Amino acid sequence: MSAVDLVIFGATGDLSARKLFPALFHLDGAGLLPESLRVAAVARQEQDTASFLTELRQKLAAYIGDEHLSDEAWHRFCGRIHYLAADFSVSDTFGAVSSWLDASRTSIFYLATPPSLFAPICEHLSAAGCLAGRHRIVLEKPIGESLATSQQVNETLARYFDEQDIYRIDHYLGKETVQNLLVLRFANRFINSQWDQSCIDHVQITVAEQVGIEGRWAYYDGVGQLRDMVQNHLMQLLCLVAMEPPNSLEADSIRDEKVKIVRALRRIDPASAKDHVVRGQYVQGVIDGVAVPGYLEESGCETPASDTETFVAIKAYVDNWRWSGVPFYLRTGKRMPEKVTEIIIQYKALPHHIFGEGEGSQPNRLIIRLQPNEGIEMSMVSKKQSLREKLSLQTHTLNFDFRGEADSERIPDAYERLFLDAINGDPSLFVGREEIEESWRWCDQLISACKQSDVSVSPYQSGSWGPSRSELLIDRDDRTWHV
Amino acid sequence: MSAVDLVIFGATGDLSARKLFPALFHLDGAGLLPESLRVAAVARQEQDTASFLTELRQKLAAYIGDEHLSDEAWHRFCGRIHYLAADFSVSDTFGAVSSWLDASRTSIFYLATPPSLFAPICEHLSAAGCLAGRHRIVLEKPIGESLATSQQVNETLARYFDEQDIYRIDHYLGKETVQNLLVLRFANRFINSQWDQSCIDHVQITVAEQVGIEGRWAYYDGVGQLRDMVQNHLMQLLCLVAMEPPNSLEADSIRDEKVKIVRALRRIDPASAKDHVVRGQYVQGVIDGVAVPGYLEESGCETPASDTETFVAIKAYVDNWRWSGVPFYLRTGKRMPEKVTEIIIQYKALPHHIFGEGEGSQPNRLIIRLQPNEGIEMSMVSKKQSLREKLSLQTHTLNFDFRGEADSERIPDAYERLFLDAINGDPSLFVGREEIEESWRWCDQLISACKQSDVSVSPYQSGSWGPSRSELLIDRDDRTWHV
Repeated sequence: MSAVDLVIFGATGDLSARKLFPALFHLDGAGLLPESLRVAAVARQEQDTASFLTELRQKLAAYIGDEHLSDEAWHRFCGRIHYLAADFSVSDTFGAVSSWLDASRTSIFYLATPPSLFAPICEHLSAAGCLAGRHRIVLEKPIGESLATSQQVNETLARYFDEQDIYRIDHYLGKETVQNLLVLRFANRFINSQWDQSCIDHVQITVAEQVGIEGRWAYYDGVGQLRDMVQNHLMQLLCLVAMEPPNSLEADSIRDEKVKIVRALRRIDPASAKDHVVRGQYVQGVIDGVAVPGYLEESGCETPASDTETFVAIKAYVDNWRWSGVPFYLRTGKRMPEKVTEIIIQYKALPHHIFGEGEGSQPNRLIIRLQPNEGIEMSMVSKKQSLREKLSLQTHTLNFDFRGEADSERIPDAYERLFLDAINGDPSLFVGREEIEESWRWCDQLISACKQSDVSVSPYQSGSWGPSRSELLIDRDDRTWHV
Repeated sequence: MSAVDLVIFGATGDLSARKLFPALFHLDGAGLLPESLRVAAVARQEQDTASFLTELRQKLAAYIGDEHLSDEAWHRFCGRIHYLAADFSVSDTFGAVSSWLDASRTSIFYLATPPSLFAPICEHLSAAGCLAGRHRIVLEKPIGESLATSQQVNETLARYFDEQDIYRIDHYLGKETVQNLLVLRFANRFINSQWDQSCIDHVQITVAEQVGIEGRWAYYDGVGQLRDMVQNHLMQLLCLVAMEPPNSLEADSIRDEKVKIVRALRRIDPASAKDHVVRGQYVQGVIDGVAVPGYLEESGCETPASDTETFVAIKAYVDNWRWSGVPFYLRTGKRMPEKVTEIIIQYKALPHHIFGEGEGSQPNRLIIRLQPNEGIEMSMVSKKQSLREKLSLQTHTLNFDFRGEADSERIPDAYERLFLDAINGDPSLFVGREEIEESWRWCDQLISACKQSDVSVSPYQSGSWGPSRSELLIDRDDRTWHV
């Protein structure tokens, strides 16, 4: 494997400070970065490496804690980093990047920039001769805001990069628990052999945010929760839950299975939209004891009558052999009471209750929690150890999460896994073009169906679990949301 | 429910001291005995209640510990007990029992005596008019030593008692973990839905004793390990693992399902005996650092060339829809390295290994352990939390055992559960006549097949896991014993 350089565009931005440099620093500290790896930190600002590093150290101290920043580790880390100035909108400023690169090494371009800069950066890299050697490009959502615009982004990328060199991040895929879900499904026959409509009643996927718009009104209002969260994160989780066992762990093998799921998602048409989709928009309320404004009262609000949804709940079906008749309830919103990301696999009820239907007769439920407290749990029924009652039952939660000996170990951040994989040239936890475009195709149709059949936004109080229609969506089927 | 009296025949014997009175004392202390329950302790010896109680207190102190014998609890317990002398072989000594009984109450006769006394005691109870009121009888193995002799015992019992009033103890059925196995199977769809030949590779049942003959040579040599352990304990465990879900928890419903399993056990004929049965006899060896004699050197040995087996391993099949093709490996012996009673449910291997076949590719395995450390565990595969390795796996053990809040609580002894059930008139954890006789029918045929095809006893060292043929029995199928 050839030596690798990392070029981070947007090195002074928020993502770099919160996620990218902390991840690199942790990897370096754990001895997981190749000895020879160099990092170019690229941003518009004219400054030298020393001044960039001074600022970076302050940011790292804030995000990972001063106690983890030993002088020795910091010193070694600094040795890798070179600050390069470039105006991403101007081609002829890429000279510094170009002359820093070494064509005998593999370059990884990490675009931690707004999506409007994806195309210019690709063009400038090409124009400055930066794409002569081996290279990969890493970028994040949003990749378009519709099928058409995502195709534009992907086509631009394809002009400069082979698909196999394009690493599209969905950071959910880098989470330990998401990878553990794959192991749970495909390394335990005990789990795998009943992962289908014969045993599973339904699936719930909830991604609840506590935050509101946080100054992003102008951007967000043109997008909404469905495009911002469902098209990517919820869709990826749904695919990992629903996909058939891949032939191997190769990226293509996994992506093929995920694409099959997106294609099998039943299209929501105008006739079914009202029964299958709930849209909501938060109004003022209280979260953790603090009064917060409604969506239309947020600073930056430009459209006082905006009907952009900040909450969406969807009842979806995967029309294939495995999942026939099993609803997937998806739900995501802002200003929820808690920050929760979880997948619930609800097993079917017992066909017959020989122990009675009281306590302990609840069906088994598998909880895959991405946050808070990453982990996987199964609710099981066991006998109460009691002589007083004959065979009385209780429901217990079984922890499927195994930190091994190093119980106290920090769970690595998703970006650490993903950085390492990009460096090692393993794209299996990244998202392929087809998945993204098929997902947009489904979402576009859903959005259009909602418009045609007038699925309007229902207001919900900040700090609630969304509009009451969301409860109705699932209550109608005699089921309830897990939280 | 009418008031209940308990009449223990053999009250000065070993079982009474080790199990029966400790269980009653614990139940009394926990407030679980009916306020009005009286206990008649019957034995041959002429003595008064006070002198019986003095001796009993010493025995209880030895078996349950002086610290649990508070004066208050002991005093209350003593208030229930009346010593009555009776020579079980002589009818006219039952007058004391008869005049102590109260025909308005339900009498429970507990025969903690050698089986040779079962019939005389029944006759004398009848002759003395003790069976006029409501009554139940409780007794333990051995119930015969063959189909013919067990039928004799059962017919004697049937002459005096209705089948529904006969409580045959197999104390394994009173164990918490055995009852928890039922809950695991029939209250968790997640477990139940794959409890069959499509998911389970094989089942192992091991009952290993560390003790040898312990002065019981004369009795044991006429019986052997198959009759002493397989016909009852191993058969009961096999039935609970293999039976179909009963319609209810009623005794008849459970017994019907158990009988169906025994009837479905493939008969072992002379042609198959050599491949399906291993018999062993211990020779001298070392256990826990102590040299111990061989079976033929034990004190009391009367037949220097005895070929009685002290170890038996059997490969059995349950020929029904659920278990077709799934071997049940049964194994029990004396002078094993450890005292272990466990059931292993070995799930099938994955059909395809996408994570490779190294560590963590072992098939799931459910372990139901009756001793030591009662409990239920599942071996599961999960992802090692490691950035260094991509998706490397580990095998972990998941504890399915739930003591609830009272984690430190003593696990009740099987006799406590069984006493309570006998007092409350619930025979569901006791063994029915049909099960016993069908089990004898199968064992008799096996014994006769071994004789006809000359399956002789192989010597094995005390402190080993039996003769090497036992390993071969399972190795031949590319499987191994769990311990």
